[in-house]
Order: sequence, then C-alpha cells, then structure tokens
Amino acid sequence: MASAPGARILVLNGPNLNLLGTREPEIYGSQTLSDVEDMVHAKAADLGLSVDFRQSNDEGELVTWIQNARADMDAIIINGAAYTHSSVAILDALLAFEGPVIEVHLSNIFQREAFRHHSYVSQAADGVICGLGAKGYLLALDALADKVAAS
Amino acid sequence: MASAPGARILVLNGPNLNLLGTREPEIYGSQTLSDVEDMVHAKAADLGLSVDFRQSNDEGELVTWIQNARADMDAIIINGAAYTHSSVAILDALLAFEGPVIEVHLSNIFQREAFRHHSYVSQAADGVICGLGAKGYLLALDALADKVAAS
Amino acid sequence: MASAPGARILVLNGPNLNLLGTREPEIYGSQTLSDVEDMVHAKAADLGLSVDFRQSNDEGELVTWIQNARADMDAIIINGAAYTHSSVAILDALLAFEGPVIEVHLSNIFQREAFRHHSYVSQAADGVICGLGAKGYLLALDALADKVAAS
Amino acid sequence: MASAPGARILVLNGPNLNLLGTREPEIYGSQTLSDVEDMVHAKAADLGLSVDFRQSNDEGELVTWIQNARADMDAIIINGAAYTHSSVAILDALLAFEGPVIEVHLSNIFQREAFRHHSYVSQAADGVICGLGAKGYLLALDALADKVAAS
Amino acid sequence: MASAPGARILVLNGPNLNLLGTREPEIYGSQTLSDVEDMVHAKAADLGLSVDFRQSNDEGELVTWIQNARADMDAIIINGAAYTHSSVAILDALLAFEGPVIEVHLSNIFQREAFRHHSYVSQAADGVICGLGAKGYLLALDALADKVAAS
Amino acid sequence: MASAPGARILVLNGPNLNLLGTREPEIYGSQTLSDVEDMVHAKAADLGLSVDFRQSNDEGELVTWIQNARADMDAIIINGAAYTHSSVAILDALLAFEGPVIEVHLSNIFQREAFRHHSYVSQAADGVICGLGAKGYLLALDALADKVAAS
Amino acid sequence: MASAPGARILVLNGPNLNLLGTREPEIYGSQTLSDVEDMVHAKAADLGLSVDFRQSNDEGELVTWIQNARADMDAIIINGAAYTHSSVAILDALLAFEGPVIEVHLSNIFQREAFRHHSYVSQAADGVICGLGAKGYLLALDALADKVAAS
Amino acid sequence: MASAPGARILVLNGPNLNLLGTREPEIYGSQTLSDVEDMVHAKAADLGLSVDFRQSNDEGELVTWIQNARADMDAIIINGAAYTHSSVAILDALLAFEGPVIEVHLSNIFQREAFRHHSYVSQAADGVICGLGAKGYLLALDALADKVAAS
Amino acid sequence: MASAPGARILVLNGPNLNLLGTREPEIYGSQTLSDVEDMVHAKAADLGLSVDFRQSNDEGELVTWIQNARADMDAIIINGAAYTHSSVAILDALLAFEGPVIEVHLSNIFQREAFRHHSYVSQAADGVICGLGAKGYLLALDALADKVAAS
Amino acid sequence: MASAPGARILVLNGPNLNLLGTREPEIYGSQTLSDVEDMVHAKAADLGLSVDFRQSNDEGELVTWIQNARADMDAIIINGAAYTHSSVAILDALLAFEGPVIEVHLSNIFQREAFRHHSYVSQAADGVICGLGAKGYLLALDALADKVAAS
Amino acid sequence: MASAPGARILVLNGPNLNLLGTREPEIYGSQTLSDVEDMVHAKAADLGLSVDFRQSNDEGELVTWIQNARADMDAIIINGAAYTHSSVAILDALLAFEGPVIEVHLSNIFQREAFRHHSYVSQAADGVICGLGAKGYLLALDALADKVAAS
Amino acid sequence: MASAPGARILVLNGPNLNLLGTREPEIYGSQTLSDVEDMVHAKAADLGLSVDFRQSNDEGELVTWIQNARADMDAIIINGAAYTHSSVAILDALLAFEGPVIEVHLSNIFQREAFRHHSYVSQAADGVICGLGAKGYLLALDALADKVAAS
Repeated sequence: MASAPGARILVLNGPNLNLLGTREPEIYGSQTLSDVEDMVHAKAADLGLSVDFRQSNDEGELVTWIQNARADMDAIIINGAAYTHSSVAILDALLAFEGPVIEVHLSNIFQREAFRHHSYVSQAADGVICGLGAKGYLLALDALADKVAAS
Repeated sequence: MASAPGARILVLNGPNLNLLGTREPEIYGSQTLSDVEDMVHAKAADLGLSVDFRQSNDEGELVTWIQNARADMDAIIINGAAYTHSSVAILDALLAFEGPVIEVHLSNIFQREAFRHHSYVSQAADGVICGLGAKGYLLALDALADKVAAS
Repeated sequence: MASAPGARILVLNGPNLNLLGTREPEIYGSQTLSDVEDMVHAKAADLGLSVDFRQSNDEGELVTWIQNARADMDAIIINGAAYTHSSVAILDALLAFEGPVIEVHLSNIFQREAFRHHSYVSQAADGVICGLGAKGYLLALDALADKVAAS
Repeated sequence: MASAPGARILVLNGPNLNLLGTREPEIYGSQTLSDVEDMVHAKAADLGLSVDFRQSNDEGELVTWIQNARADMDAIIINGAAYTHSSVAILDALLAFEGPVIEVHLSNIFQREAFRHHSYVSQAADGVICGLGAKGYLLALDALADKVAAS
Repeated sequence: MASAPGARILVLNGPNLNLLGTREPEIYGSQTLSDVEDMVHAKAADLGLSVDFRQSNDEGELVTWIQNARADMDAIIINGAAYTHSSVAILDALLAFEGPVIEVHLSNIFQREAFRHHSYVSQAADGVICGLGAKGYLLALDALADKVAAS
Repeated sequence: MASAPGARILVLNGPNLNLLGTREPEIYGSQTLSDVEDMVHAKAADLGLSVDFRQSNDEGELVTWIQNARADMDAIIINGAAYTHSSVAILDALLAFEGPVIEVHLSNIFQREAFRHHSYVSQAADGVICGLGAKGYLLALDALADKVAAS
Repeated sequence: MASAPGARILVLNGPNLNLLGTREPEIYGSQTLSDVEDMVHAKAADLGLSVDFRQSNDEGELVTWIQNARADMDAIIINGAAYTHSSVAILDALLAFEGPVIEVHLSNIFQREAFRHHSYVSQAADGVICGLGAKGYLLALDALADKVAAS
Repeated sequence: MASAPGARILVLNGPNLNLLGTREPEIYGSQTLSDVEDMVHAKAADLGLSVDFRQSNDEGELVTWIQNARADMDAIIINGAAYTHSSVAILDALLAFEGPVIEVHLSNIFQREAFRHHSYVSQAADGVICGLGAKGYLLALDALADKVAAS
Repeated sequence: MASAPGARILVLNGPNLNLLGTREPEIYGSQTLSDVEDMVHAKAADLGLSVDFRQSNDEGELVTWIQNARADMDAIIINGAAYTHSSVAILDALLAFEGPVIEVHLSNIFQREAFRHHSYVSQAADGVICGLGAKGYLLALDALADKVAAS
Repeated sequence: MASAPGARILVLNGPNLNLLGTREPEIYGSQTLSDVEDMVHAKAADLGLSVDFRQSNDEGELVTWIQNARADMDAIIINGAAYTHSSVAILDALLAFEGPVIEVHLSNIFQREAFRHHSYVSQAADGVICGLGAKGYLLALDALADKVAAS
Repeated sequence: MASAPGARILVLNGPNLNLLGTREPEIYGSQTLSDVEDMVHAKAADLGLSVDFRQSNDEGELVTWIQNARADMDAIIINGAAYTHSSVAILDALLAFEGPVIEVHLSNIFQREAFRHHSYVSQAADGVICGLGAKGYLLALDALADKVAAS
Repeated sequence: MASAPGARILVLNGPNLNLLGTREPEIYGSQTLSDVEDMVHAKAADLGLSVDFRQSNDEGELVTWIQNARADMDAIIINGAAYTHSSVAILDALLAFEGPVIEVHLSNIFQREAFRHHSYVSQAADGVICGLGAKGYLLALDALADKVAAS
C-alpha cells in the first residue's frame, strides 16, 4: 500500500459523537470517541498521514472547520451524525472543498429509522463507509492514503 | 400529589422563545419568557423541585445542555420551538438522556402550518403537552414530580 | 390555582378504553378505566369541578354526547382512542361545541404506528396531552379549571 | 317538468346535521334541519313525490336505512356529512341500492379542508350537488323527478 | 320560486362540448349542444332570466368572455370540460367575477379517470352540479334565479 | 385432522354482508348469509367446534362483540367487510383478544378498488384468506381447529 | 366435500423456500420444504388430486414452469416468496394460465416490512391464503378440489 | 426614485457565502463577498440608506441578529444560502420582524437540485429576487428604498 | 449603472393581467396595467432601452410572441400569470430564445395556494423577481440593462 | 406493403415545432419543419396516402382541427409537443375521433425532464413512436397505411 | 431508403412472448412469435440486414445475450416484456452496448396497468415504438437501417 | 491487524460486472473484473483469508450461491450491481446467512439515478462501502478479517 507522507487529514465528528461509548451501546458500541481518536492516530502513523481529529455539536462550527480545511488539509473524513440528514450547509461547505471526502457512519444507517436513510453528505462524498464501527474510520484513512498518493 | 424533594429539572426553550410576549401574541400570548420562568419557579417550589431554566437560539448549544444534563439533572422539559421540526441532533441528545422528558408547546402545533405537525422531539419524549400556553410548563412539572417520585 | 366552582366537565372515552388495565398493559398501564374515573372525580372535587365521565365503543353515540354537551357542559376532555384517527364526525361535533376542549391520550401516539400519528380531534382541541398515562386526565382538568375560570 | 306520482324518496342526513342552523352558520347557514325538511316536503308535494326525511349520527344506522330502502324506496338523496369522507360502509350500501342516488352538500366541500375534498359517496352517486345550501335538496328532488319518470 | 326578471346569465361551455351528442354517448348522452341550448333558453324564459349561451375550444377566449361578463352579466354557469382540470387562467378570471358562479358537468367526474377528479373551477364556484346530464344546466339556472333574487 | 371438541369460535360479519346473495352477485356470489351460516355450522360440527355466527352494520357493536369474546370465545373469524379498510377501533379490539384470529374476504380484495387493498384487520390477524367465496369461512374453521388443538 | 379425481395441481415454491426450517424459524416455522411436500401429497391423496411439487430460485424457471402448466395442469398453488413482490414476469405467466390459481404465504406478509405488503401474484390469483403456515397449502388444495370439481 | 434618508438595512448572508468568488464560480460568479459588500454600500449611499452587512455560518447567530434587528433596523435583505431550505428558526425570527424583508439568491435556485426549490424564508419575505447575481442585492435595496419611503 | 442604448425588451403579461387594478386589489394592488406600462416606459427611457409591452389571455399568442422575439428582441421580461404554473409551451418557447429572460410576479407566489408555488417559466428564466408589485418590472429592466450591456 | 389509395392523413404539429431546426438542435436535430413536411409528403406519395400537414401554437386550434378531422380524415399523426403533457382538451378531441391515431415525438421524451414523461395523448393513441427524429413520422405513415388498409 | 448491407441486428424478446398468439389475444393479437420472426426476417432481407431473433424467460440470459452483442451485433431491437418494468440489469447491459437500441412493445403500455407505464429500457433506448403490434418490429428495423447506414 | 487464518470469504459480483473496465469507464474505472479478482486474492493472502470470487448475470444463481455459502463460507462480500436495487430474493438469501455480510459498490450510488439510491442488500448487510472503486473490496476484506477474528 502506497504511503502518502505528510498528507493532512481532517477527521470531523458531528453532534453527540462525544457521547460515544456511553450512549445506546447496542447501536454504537462501547468505545469512546477518545478510543476512536487513538485508533485513528495509530493507523495514520502507519500510513504516514497526519490527522486533525475534531468533534462539535454545532453545525456552524463544522461548516467553518470544513471551510478552513481548504487552506491546510488534503482530505476529509466526516461522520456527520445527526447533521448528515438535515444539513445543506455542511453539504455546501464540502462541495467547496477540493480534496477527497469520505463519509463514515458507525452503524448501518439503512437499517435504522427512515429519516436516517437519506444523507446530504453523500452528495459531496467520494465514498461512503457505514456499519463497520470505528473500523470504518481506519478503512477511510486507508482509502485516502491511496487517493492522496494517486493525486 | 407526591413531592419529589430535591429533584432537578432542566427546562429548555428553543429559538425565538426569548421574544415571547412580543411576537405574534395572537399565537403565543402576551407573557414574556421571564414571566414563564417565574411561574415555573413558583410551581417547582410548590412541588419541591429545583429548576434550571434556559433559552438558546443555537441548536448546538441546546444539544450540549442536554448532554450535560446527563450528569446533574433528573428530568427535562423541552419546548424545542422551531428546532422541534428539524433537529435530529436534539433528538439524538435526548435519546441519550435516561431520565423522563416532556415536550411542551405553547400553541397547538397541529392547527398551524403543515411543517409544524411533525416533531422529532416526540420520538424521544415520554409525554407531549401542547396548546395550553405557559400553563403547559406547569403541568409538565406536575407530571414530572410524579414520575421522579415513582422512579 | 383558581377554582371554577360548579363548572361541568364532560370526560369522554372512546372505543376499547373500557378494557383499560386488561389490554396491552405495556402500552396502556394496569389501571382500569374505573380507577381513572375515581382519580378524575377526586381531582375534580379538589378543583371544584363536576365531571360526567363516559365511555362508548360507538362513534355515533360519542357524537351525540358531544352535541348534548352544548346544552349543559362547560368543557370537554376527550380521549378518542381509535376514533381519534378516523372520525370526521367527532371532529365536526367538537367544532360545534363552544367551550374549551382538551385531547388526552394515555400513550405517546407519536411513537406508535404511523396511522396513529394523525388526529382529527386535534383540529378541534385547544390543547393536547399525551404519553402521561392517567395523569393526563388530571392535568387536563387542571388546565380546564384555569380556562373556565378565565372565561 | 314530468311529475312522478307516488315515487318515494329517502332523504338521508348524516352526523351533526341535526345541529343545522346552530353550528358554524357562516358555513352552513341559519336554517335548521327542520326548516330544510319543510322545504323538502313542500317541493316534493309540488313534484308529486313522497319523502322520508331522516337524520342519524350513527354510521351503522345510516347503512341499515339504505339497505331497507331497497324494499320500499325509489331513489335516495344523501347528505353524508362527515361520513362522506370516511365511510366505505355507506358506499357499499349505496352500491347495493338499484335506484338513482344524488349526493348533496350544503357547502362547497372543495373550498374547505383537504380531507373534505374526497367523497366515498360520489363513487355510488349518479349526481352530486354541492355549495347551494338547502336549495341543493330541492334541485336533487327535481332531478330525481325526471329520473324516476324516465325509468 | 322567485323570478329574477332581467337578470343576465352567461352560460359557458368548454372544449369539445360542441361535439355533444356525437361523442361517447355512453358518457355524455345523445343530446346535442344545440338541444341543451334550447332547453336552457326555455327554462330561462320560465324563470325570467336572459341567457348568453357560448362554446369555445380556446382557453384564452373563455378567459376573455369571463372577463367581459364583469360588465354586463349577473351570473355565470360554466361547464369547463377539459379546461376544468388544467386551467388556472379560467380560475383567475372567475375569481375576478363578482356575481355567483355555478359549475356544471354532464357526467359524474368523480367516477371517471383520476385526472378528472380535480377541478380548478371549483375553487371559484359557489356551487357544483355534476352527473345529472343537461338537466344540470337547468338546475343551475334555478339556483341562480334564487341567488340573483336574493342579492 | 385434529378435532378441537368444545372450542368456541366467534364468526363476525361486517356491514352489508346481510345483503349477501342479493348484492352485486358477480362479486360476492349468490349464496345468502344464511346459507353461509349453515355451511359454517355444518363444518364446525364436523370439526367438533361450536360457532356463534353474527352480523352487524354497526362498528361499535362489532367492537363490543369482539371485547365480549375475550370472556367466552377461543378464536375469531372476521369478515370485516367495509370496516376492514377504515376501522382502527376493530383493530384495537382484536389486538386485545388473545386467541387466534383469521380474516376472511369473499372476493379477492387486491383486484378491486385501491382503497380496498389495505386492511387494518390484517394487522391483528394470524391469517388471511380471501377470494375463495364462502369456502373461505370453512377453511378458516379448519385452520382454527388445528390452532386451538395445538394451544 | 366433492373429490376431483385425477385433477393435476402444480405447487410452485419460489426462492429460498428450499431453506425452510433452517431459516428464520420464528417467521417461517421449523418444518422443512420436504415436510411440507409430504403433507401436500398426503392431503392431495385424500382429495383424489395429483400434485407436482417444485421449488426454484430462478424467476425464469418459474415462469417456464407456469407456461408449461397450460398443457397439463388443472390448477396452480404458488408461494412466490420474494418474487411475489417484484416479478411482473410471473404475473404475466399466471395471467396466461386459464385454470384457478391460489397464492399461499407461510407468514402474514401484511405484518412484515412494507415492501412485502404488495403482491403482483395477487393480481392473477383467484384466492390468497397467508399467515397459516404449511397448513395454508392444504387449505389451498381443499379450495381447489372444490373449484376443479365445479368447473 | 424616492430616497429614504437614514433608513437602516440589515443585509444578512448565510453559510458558505464567505467563500464567494472561490467556490463553484460557474454557479456563483467570481465576485467575493467583500466585493458584494462594497457594491451594496455604494448603492445604499446613492439611495441614502445605511447598511449593516453581515455573514455567518451559524444558524443561531443569524436568528439572534434578526431578533436584534427589531430594535434598530428598518428592513432586512437576507440571502439565507443553505439555511434557506432547512431553517424554521430563521423563518420564525423573520416572522417576528415587523419591517419589510427581501430574500435574495445569487443563482436561480429553481434550476438547481430539487431540495433547493423550497424556501422557508419565502414564507416571511415580502419579495424574492433570485438568479441575478450580486445585482440582486442592489435591486433589493432599491425596492426597500421605495417601501421604507412609503411606510 | 451602464446604459444599453437601443436594446429592445419585450415585456409580456399573461392572462387576466389586463384586469390589474380592478381584481383582488388586496393581492395585486390598485395600479392598472396601463399604469404599469407607463412606469415601464419611463424607466426604460431612463435606461436607454426600448420596450414592447403586451398582454394576452391566449397561451398560443404568448408562445408566438416569444418566438417572434427571437428575430428582433434582445431580452424578455415575462409575468406569465396563470400560465406560469401550467404552460410547458411557454417554457419551450422561452428555451428557444437566446437572450436573457427575467420572470416577474406582482405578488409573492410562495405565500399563495400551493399550485402557484411551481413555475415552468423559472426553468427558462435567468432571474426571478416576485412580491415587489409593479416595482418588480422596473427592477427587471434595471437588471437587463446590465446584462445586455455586458453581452 | 399494402397501399391505401386515397386515405387521408392529418399530420398535426404542436407548439414551437415551427422552430424546428433552429431550436436546441442537440435535442431536435437540424431539419426544419418544412423539411419534415417534404419527407412526409414524399413518403405518403409512395404509400398512396394524402396528407394534410399542419402546425399550431394554439391549443384550441389544435382541438378544432382534430374535431374537423372527424368529417374528412381517415387517421391522425400527432406530435403534440408541449401540449402532450398538459392538454386534456386535445385528449378529449382525439377520443372523439374514430380513426387510428399515432403519437410521434422527435426525441425520446423518457430521457428528458420528468414532466415530459407523462403524455395525455397516449391515452387516446393507438401507437406511440418516439426518439427516432423525423423518421418517426414516416414510420407512423407506414403503420397507418397498414391500419387503414385493414379497416 | 438506404440499405445497410450486412448490418447485424439482435432482436430480443422477453418473458412470456413465446406464448404470443395463445395469450390474451385481445391485447397481444393472434400472431405467434414464430409468425413475427418470419415477418422480421422477410423485412430484414428487404433492407439487407441480418437478424438474430431470440426469446427468453430468463433475465440473466437476456443480460448475457445483450453483453455478447457488443462483439458481433450492430444494433438491438428489444421487447423486454415484463422485464421492461423491473430489470435494472437489462438496462445496465443495454447501457454498455454502443450501437443503437430500439424498444418495441406490441400493445400501448400507457393504456394498461400503472406499473406498466414505466420502462427501465427506455433509459437506454434511442427510440421507442409501442402499440403497433408486430408491425412495430418492422418499423424498428426500418429505423435501424437508416441509423446503421448513417453511422 | 488480526489475521483470520483459514477463514473463507465468498465474493459475489452481480450482473454486468463481467464487463468491468470496458463499460462506462468514467463511472466504473478501467480495471477489469479479473484485475479486481487478482487484487482481492493478493489482499486475502496478506490477511490469511481464502476467497471464492464469482460473478453471475443470473439472480437465481446468485441466490443459490448465497444459500450454499451457509455450508462452507464464513463471510460474504457482495456487489449486487443492478440486483442491489430490485432483488428481494437476494435479500432473503442473505438474511438466511449467519456470517457477516459486507455490501460493496464501485461507484457512489447516491450520486447516480434515484432508482440506484435504494438497496435491498443493505437490509441484510452489516456494513456498506461504496464509491471507493476496487479498493472497496480490499477494505471489505480488511473489515471481515477483524469480524471473523472477533467471532
């Protein structure tokens, strides 16, 4: 697998993901977001990527972070959580980002309530990975390593 | 009626409720939010409950307040106002709160525009009270006093 | 709380509510309709209200009772049960009643099957209380005491 | 205009029409159902028709009356009121009646709430007259006089 | 029945009604439009009304005729035929006409194809008569005689 | 085939089924309801079942009969006729009945008008048999004999 | 019950029914398809019918079997399984078969996912039996014995 | 054209408009938001209006700014960007503002994705201008100059 | 503001706009179409544009005028009135016109009946201005002056 | 191929087809309507048919031409263009024409905007040919030659 | 008409077309598929085309035949029959074929059941011919002769 | 990363994937299915997994392969291609498979035609990976290695 030394990846986590491990573990598992962050940093190190890992409950803040990524990030991994289904603002910000974007969901959103089946984020994402738990973030990093290397 | 001494209730008010009494009084009445807060505190005192009464125009802030309530609140009364109809993020935060939740609306939302008939909050609420003006908050307190006493 | 001495309240219960306490207790609880009636009378006595508490499985009978209430009742509390979702006739009768109307449901109808999410009764009700079990009837009485006193 | 001596017409009135003249006069006018009945009898006398004029709040009773009309009535005029929009049972009873059926509504149901725009009765009626107040019953009699004479 | 001497009624017939009696007689009957016109004039004479009876296949021409009626007509009877279901322009013209409007259809449009169930004309009509063949025009005249007399 | 001696079956027939044999025979056949009742009693005798066979045009009465069956019936066969498609009240009553329920329709409702394709009764029925005429009742008895024997 | 000696019945089973008894037993029960086949043969012998019992995972093969049945089968019992909901081709083949067709489902498809509520097969079937497990096949045979005898 | 000296106009820009000129120039053109602001100030000066020109990615902040405008602004021009399509909160805030409101969009939203065709803002706006690029802001100012002068 | 000397603008007005000032003034204002035409000519003179201002109740005539504009007009302003919502023919004619097109509506069509929310004209228009009364025409001229100057 | 000497074919072309060859050539090709007419006449001559080839932008005129064809035409080929999708009046006129009707479209309307997928004309046409450019008219003539010869 | 010597045309027929002439002749006519094949070969010979004429009940086989046509066929005529309405797989195979594709249906699918109005095949076809019986295949050949000659 | 020695993975490819690299390379890339298979085997070797890699155009064959996997496979990776969107049969087969299932798509199906947005496969899959090209298969293997190791 090609490494992409120095490539910078913004990993964004939407609302309530800060509760990970303490909320509905039958859906989201028992790992905390901090656990996920550690796994992501370890995997990124293996792949020679640098990662900026963030969480916010605020739609506007997520929009601003995506905008800022235009200046200093090569790719984005985003788990939009609840905003996945309602935020045109996040979609628009992602459409303005030129690097690759991968959407991740811990659970398989297509087996949950109907309103979680539609994703605005998917309209701007190159790829989507869902239902594979925290492993999904690592797979997304792996995919981005290839993409960034190829560009 | 059983009192629930010391039980702590978070009363949340969504966007534009800070304008209460000055906006469309034919729909929302002429009491200000401060008037409502006073009534709520008085009723809570009668019931032996303590209340933290808040308002925000910001979806993310409301999400965070609900998350924090997991640590130090026994129940939530929420008038989500406009976010009632659009916020999956608030729904998800409420789903992560283990105590009882009562949804309140000042007006009868089912007699207003069609887009106000659907509530995400209802998916996470134990009970719903609407159309009874500020009195709805007091009834919600009354119901919670019973619920908290029973738990 | 203002008392409304002598005000007369018609409390209507729709089809199958006579089975209360024996049907699907995980949804409707274990109190019987007779238990609820006792609670309602006790609360009404506290508030100085008189109550006529009735149940029918028959849509036409419910319509007629509502019509008759125009002559000798000051307010109506109605748990339309199944007819909530299908009866335009009950809606029309309620629209012809000039006093306040409060709709009550024991369960949170918005978390049940989709066909229970829509209520014709809500089109004619001043307020709606659902998901709070038999307590909902008592809260409705409380709200009506205020309304009748204010009129 | 041809008279139809001896032809018998059942005139059916659905739920809440007994309140006519006392309910929402801005929609339904100030005539009582008794006034309408008098007008109908006068017009029928002019046309040489006999009329059985009835009202019920009960869907089942209306169904039974329609069934019985198969034995001794030549035509039906029906203002189904609220059951117009919900009763498949009345539709089925009318489909079993072999004589002509005319549907009447006092108000123009197509300018009211959306749920009043659809009529099951129309599926079984030869003709529909709406929005012309009590006059609609008289026009229906007139039309039936022709139809019965022609058959 | 009150006569309304001198009242002027515009009777409008939409596209393809000039084919009446020669087209799909199982739906529309075997009378020609000329037959209908004769019946209308005879009935109008009985009622002391004057009638201007017209047909056009052209939506714009019908709009213009309705506009002109504002100057010299007291009421309109309109069988919009196909334009019933598609013409907002005719609706708007009728909304600008201040006298009473009655919509007539020869067949019961509610038992035909689904696209014939909706009428724009109904949004502007005081009354609707359908399914009663050419008799419907005569009933409409009768109703207008009353309305014009009452105004 | 196992017999279920003494098991009691309530056979319910909804509105207009009393007209069987005289109404739309091309859909419902020429047997009368009394013929069907005879066939049902004969078949039940063969299977060692006792049957209470009833018909009502009244939704409320049907609800009450189902409620009463909780005390003294082991199973229900129901042909809800028109109420199949509109009655949440009958559905709720059936949900409160603990024994097996089989829904029967004489005609294949899925080849008729669209509004007859949906059945509330199916939500509470163990099995559905339709389109097989009066034979459907006999098959339902046969199926219940097994079910009651197995319980 | 009339016997129909020599009548030939094709019993078709759609995709995945070969897994019966090993797949989701809480929905489909623990009998294998071979068990069902034995029951069907035994019942057919009682009724004097001959049965050709088949299963295929292949839509085209099922279509061809139905076509071939035109030459040498008197009736068809079909449990289309998954193809019930998606196959216009099977519907068309059944429409070309002149003998009676009965549709069977082991489970009550109306209580499962929404996409299982619609059946193309029902458009071509004389009767439908569902929710009665393997017994449904036997009831279908019984009904066909009558139908074939009557023809 | 009437000038409205001293009238104060709040010009609000929603999420991602700060990226103007750098994002999808084929849709939004190459002017930056700063360029637009300069044009707006120049035009306002010509018209004798004062302008407060703002942008935010945060729905709650936009709501608060609209609320504050009740105290010191005479009119609002709003390009809600992505929140146009999802924010009931902004709609409610605008409904509480008594002065005129004009909605502006740079692109013709009706020729873009379907989810951009619906605007909550339009429910509260006096006028809508879209598809005319930055010029739309200037036209809105022009229209407001007239409106403010007329009030 | 750049002038565009000699540029020719076709201003089209759809059905019933000839009634302007006399029809529903609470929606459309009290100016007549002739008043609007005068304002348009005055503004055009200021901008150095020539204007051909027309109105028709006839869809086909409007189509032909748009077609002819291909030969001798530089831009079109169109208030399609009722045809806005129903005319694919006007849309197709506009699609064949190469110059800029601006759609104008006097009222805010998004606050009126649902069938007025959709515009076929918008599919072919560069810009849309609605809700600003006759001023909208002047703003459209202003916008076109820029566009024509820029081309 | 059978010739049908003397058979008369009306070839109708709807709105904007007079622009053929000058409008959106990537969709409609570069032939003018006159070119198409020449091809049609040549082909008709080969087949021994006579053709009346017409175009109109006016719905009413097209309706009238179809009506007149009842007297002197044997068949109709119609490219309704935009009216295909909106005109019930043309449908009704075609339903009154007894000879064969073939609908033609130059482009494959099923690969264009969704509102072009539905055709009212198809409800009255014997056959439909689309997507084959001007050749479609010639194929339609060929098909009609057979049909007229066979009748 | 240009001949296209040597051009190879694959003519595909979907499920149940092998029953042609024996199934629902009122819809599909009395010619057998073998008759159609003979007509197609004769017409192809006239046009100098070679034809491979096939039928299958199997979706997968049809997909494979289309794939193989990429190697040795110049064009495809396809009557997908029932798979027209359900097969994305056939659509995808056709999208991978570079030559022209013409879709044929014997009947006018737009006058049949609603589920037959939508065609996946149309998304990949250059042209569509329906409702003209077996003649449709010959017209398709004629159209392809032109297309192949032109390429 | 945990290895899962000996674990057997069935990799299924649906219709038209055998054309990979030769069909619409702008959507699916230029790798052939054989290239993908080689990559999959190499990755599996790294992870200590064995792979059975298959493709079929036949829905029934895919169903059978999934059924057989119950006996000798530990997990399934499935790219259902066109059958993703239409096959309830494949869904049912997957529901009967007890090991983990991962759905893969080369392209981001959510940015393609609307009918490709819904997947039946997702109802049975643990995880979904789409839009990442052939890399998606490798990521799926990686995820399965973990899952199999964990079970």
